[in-house]
Amino acid sequence: MKLYDFPKAPNPRRVNIFVAEKGLDIERVTIDLSTREQLKPEYRSKNPACDVPMLELEDGTCISQIRGITHYLEATYPDTPLLGGTPAEKGLVEMWEHLAFMDGLLAVAEVFRNTAKGFVDRAVVGPYNYPQSAELAERGRSRIVNFYKEFDQQLANNEYVAGQSYSMADITTLVVCDFAKWIKSSIPEDCKHLQAWYNKVSQRPAVAANP
Amino acid sequence: MKLYDFPKAPNPRRVNIFVAEKGLDIERVTIDLSTREQLKPEYRSKNPACDVPMLELEDGTCISQIRGITHYLEATYPDTPLLGGTPAEKGLVEMWEHLAFMDGLLAVAEVFRNTAKGFVDRAVVGPYNYPQSAELAERGRSRIVNFYKEFDQQLANNEYVAGQSYSMADITTLVVCDFAKWIKSSIPEDCKHLQAWYNKVSQRPAVAANP
Repeated sequence: MKLYDFPKAPNPRRVNIFVAEKGLDIERVTIDLSTREQLKPEYRSKNPACDVPMLELEDGTCISQIRGITHYLEATYPDTPLLGGTPAEKGLVEMWEHLAFMDGLLAVAEVFRNTAKGFVDRAVVGPYNYPQSAELAERGRSRIVNFYKEFDQQLANNEYVAGQSYSMADITTLVVCDFAKWIKSSIPEDCKHLQAWYNKVSQRPAVAANP
Repeated sequence: MKLYDFPKAPNPRRVNIFVAEKGLDIERVTIDLSTREQLKPEYRSKNPACDVPMLELEDGTCISQIRGITHYLEATYPDTPLLGGTPAEKGLVEMWEHLAFMDGLLAVAEVFRNTAKGFVDRAVVGPYNYPQSAELAERGRSRIVNFYKEFDQQLANNEYVAGQSYSMADITTLVVCDFAKWIKSSIPEDCKHLQAWYNKVSQRPAVAANP
């Protein structure tokens, strides 16, 4: 099994923390996003979506998308569950992970990919070029503020993002808070529950080992 | 258990087909999106994300987001699995469902929500108002064409979207193809594999019963 990785980027980091929390040792292959290696024919033939991370199994099956990789790993290595234990927990982890992705990660990406000089015509992850949009960057700035408020509210009543247990929903939310620094955004002062949770989960060994 | 529903809309339809494929009988509560009932305090107190569908369990737990609802139902009613059997199948279903959502459903929504007269200032699902963007609508039009090509390629080599078994990835892909009609887009003539698959899955009783 090989994990195609680029540890500096936020999406690979989500899987790297997940793998570290499970205590797994998986061979890595670096795909250098800074030279657009993900668009080159060799990688593209394995992953037409041209994104990182991607997991290649021993039989050659290639699983891309963080949801794909984490569900494969959770089913294969069920110890230290990170996608929920009971059916209700499983539902709540998926729900909150999706909200963190949609309202947080995509909001920051809307700003970053539509403003960064290195991303001209690369506004969307994947094989196709799309132009940057100043309107979309502005929308992302508004959305990230609402993300902080929503998640602060959730963490006012819950120890972790999806309830009483640490899960993949925490991993994605944490990565959003750090990715936001790339666009010079940070947790607002009045979001004290989110900040306290962030300070706590940042100290986990699996998180600290994957900065 | 109650499923908050608005059957005319594409996202509730994804869950309604899933429920029908599993042969479940779940009480429905209609939330009328045409009068913005999803933004009213009673519903909002159960689902701060203000979207439909949402599942309320007997103990009052509210699970929103299609991923949350389908994973809860799959764990509770494992017969007729729709999220994969083996670990690799589970990974591939999540991967392809995510790609159908990101490259298909969000692309059509980019066009629809940024152009429809009834959606002025409602460009994003949820509690907050964001203005429409002509740039984003135009981007969505390009993206949907690439979605058709990608999925046609996948279906050239596979009976179903995620491989050899019908799954949630087929349900979302089918709903994308029908949602695209709202923006006067349809499967291009040269996408023969996608069209043949569409004709086949449209005839499934669970799909036909939830038009």
